[in-house]
Amino acid sequence: MGQTIIEKILSSHCGRTAHAGEIVVARLDFIMGQDGTSPLAIRAFQEMDGQAVFDPDRAALVIDHSAPSPNEGVSALHKLMREFAREKGLHLFDIGEGVCHQLVPESGRVGPGSLVIGADSHTCTYGALNAFSTGVGSTDLAAGLISGQMWFKVPETFKFVCRGTLPPGVYAKDLILFLIGDVTADGVTYMSAEYTGGAVTALSMEGRFTMANMAIEMGAKAGLMEADDKTFAWLGQFTRRQFTPVSADPDARYAKIKEYDVSSLAPQVARPHRVDNVCPVDGVAGTPVQQAVLGTCTNGRLEDLRIAAGILAGRRVHRDVRLIVAPASRRIFLQAMREGIIQTLVESGAAVVTPGCGPCVGTHNGVPSDGENVISTANRNFKGRMGNSNAFIYLASPATVAASALTGQITDPREFVKQVTA
Amino acid sequence: MGQTIIEKILSSHCGRTAHAGEIVVARLDFIMGQDGTSPLAIRAFQEMDGQAVFDPDRAALVIDHSAPSPNEGVSALHKLMREFAREKGLHLFDIGEGVCHQLVPESGRVGPGSLVIGADSHTCTYGALNAFSTGVGSTDLAAGLISGQMWFKVPETFKFVCRGTLPPGVYAKDLILFLIGDVTADGVTYMSAEYTGGAVTALSMEGRFTMANMAIEMGAKAGLMEADDKTFAWLGQFTRRQFTPVSADPDARYAKIKEYDVSSLAPQVARPHRVDNVCPVDGVAGTPVQQAVLGTCTNGRLEDLRIAAGILAGRRVHRDVRLIVAPASRRIFLQAMREGIIQTLVESGAAVVTPGCGPCVGTHNGVPSDGENVISTANRNFKGRMGNSNAFIYLASPATVAASALTGQITDPREFVKQVTA
Repeated sequence: MGQTIIEKILSSHCGRTAHAGEIVVARLDFIMGQDGTSPLAIRAFQEMDGQAVFDPDRAALVIDHSAPSPNEGVSALHKLMREFAREKGLHLFDIGEGVCHQLVPESGRVGPGSLVIGADSHTCTYGALNAFSTGVGSTDLAAGLISGQMWFKVPETFKFVCRGTLPPGVYAKDLILFLIGDVTADGVTYMSAEYTGGAVTALSMEGRFTMANMAIEMGAKAGLMEADDKTFAWLGQFTRRQFTPVSADPDARYAKIKEYDVSSLAPQVARPHRVDNVCPVDGVAGTPVQQAVLGTCTNGRLEDLRIAAGILAGRRVHRDVRLIVAPASRRIFLQAMREGIIQTLVESGAAVVTPGCGPCVGTHNGVPSDGENVISTANRNFKGRMGNSNAFIYLASPATVAASALTGQITDPREFVKQVTA
Repeated sequence: MGQTIIEKILSSHCGRTAHAGEIVVARLDFIMGQDGTSPLAIRAFQEMDGQAVFDPDRAALVIDHSAPSPNEGVSALHKLMREFAREKGLHLFDIGEGVCHQLVPESGRVGPGSLVIGADSHTCTYGALNAFSTGVGSTDLAAGLISGQMWFKVPETFKFVCRGTLPPGVYAKDLILFLIGDVTADGVTYMSAEYTGGAVTALSMEGRFTMANMAIEMGAKAGLMEADDKTFAWLGQFTRRQFTPVSADPDARYAKIKEYDVSSLAPQVARPHRVDNVCPVDGVAGTPVQQAVLGTCTNGRLEDLRIAAGILAGRRVHRDVRLIVAPASRRIFLQAMREGIIQTLVESGAAVVTPGCGPCVGTHNGVPSDGENVISTANRNFKGRMGNSNAFIYLASPATVAASALTGQITDPREFVKQVTA
């Protein structure tokens, strides 16, 4: 019987041919924890009488959720992480280096066929690299650090076939929001999403990361894509390590296959307070916004910043809007300065915060006020997500966020995009 | 009887010739509040049944202490400020624009002879522009906003005469720290400091702002300098407004005059937990540091960033040190990107935070952990100042901070400065 991508990756990591529904114990290629989850994992590690990390080269801790530290309590947790990393010989990405889900791919340790766990729900991001990566809890992280292994129930697979070409002004973010709205927040629960079709292969690596990142928002365990020349060219910037691409067999068994033609897709917006509460931008156009957020592990990459800068160049952010920009990594921040993108954003009125999670997780760097509407490129709009349960979060593409920041209300970016590309 | 600078400025604003010790009611040229103090002032304004601001063009509110907002409580205060500013027609500098003490000078509203109050203790900064500016409480701010006036007891004046030339690697920050150490934290209480002599006139405007900024750290009501060509050239970047320079009369009466020769001054460091606990850098060299801070209203200006970048260029910040950079304003941030300074700092390992107060006031953006030592270009090292009363803050020049960030311990910057200028 043929195998899906995730069945193949789990098989290669457990020493036998595995299929959906089976329980396997698999070797881990890489393990990651961030500052929201690692402190608990470190305590669990100690409670399990953990001595050494199974392979310090295969693990990293990242300080990104609250970086630099906004209060004494968080500072103590950061110190705990730094001491643990030093003691166990782990690499620690400290403040200013960026979001875990950009730093792990940039580390060159993860690629086609890799199996990764991370104590962060958006660890599924590396599916863009043809890797099976998934989020785990802090206790599982601790067990993984000690043993280098983890048990999985092999997930079934939901295959998305996306045909056609995304129209100008419509991006990977719009596509993934549309898919989430279509299948709903629990439509792919404990399954692996396989994103396929010409509309997916046409995406840049940035767009693919965005698609993979949000797989969890439909309940998926992973959001996988095939590797191609773009994948290997991207990886080649960071490593000479060799990876073998993993494709599904033609006779692989899917729990579900859904086909879409994206050619007439409009920009999409997820309305408060659910990620699957999605509509075309027309449905919410004109809604006033007080804050706009460009960045995060979903859309803080160079292409995202470039698209927003293209719209904002030579214009001023609306006087009633605060535009907050969080580049996904130091490397992206530097590249964006090299291209003049940061300069353009700042000239238009943006406040650039330290590379990292920015205001996405509500711990600092732009908590909205009561009654305010935020338009954001992030991946979650749950009530209270940004630190205030009386605020309203709309999710959209970098283009929609930039256009809305200019007008002070949710705005279809296509008029601006036409002007830029004309 | 001759007059000091402050006697002349107060006289011109109260309609009669005033001398030290007299009580005057003076017209205010400009009024400023920040986000730590304005919310209380707005409430006081309402309790006083304030209707309009006496002249909305002569007042501004600045969101700089916690920008972008680190929590819901602060967000509510920011919203209150935004609504008050909109309702009263005041200018509000929102997140990302910078520190009040850089933005008010950049506004071009303050110059030689101006009289300014601000609800922030370091409002004395504009003394560098030959203006009498001083910090007031929130209730006084409210009264000033309503009436455009304020009463003052005309301060006596303490004249500092600084002769000689600062040696290479020794800066305005070292000089002012040395003066504070010499006269102590209450040595100039309720007096106006007049900074004079060749070593002061030789300073750049950046250096003069640093000197004026820290006048409050010796208890001074103001830290004044004469205006010269540098003053007017600096102002000319921002305004065509005409200002008349104010000089002390030759027979002005001083409470105290102290002379210094700065030619052999060494880099200075203020040790925890008092700003006047000052010693030459030799006295603390080798002390390990875990965090280094470059920025704030004291030393976040272009020259400061340039000096630090000169030392950090092509080198990496020590692995055990977090270097946090907070440019003093959006304009400075943009200028520094234009010169490649931000790029150099980030390449060396710095985390750049949004222009504003950064971690100086302990509300976010880099609260240290228990037991950590911080070397900072800020103006205060009180216990708990940065949000953790179990941390230790050392104050120094941008050069000393940069050199210490490289070595991981408090370091005399002169060896690095020699390499840079060689």
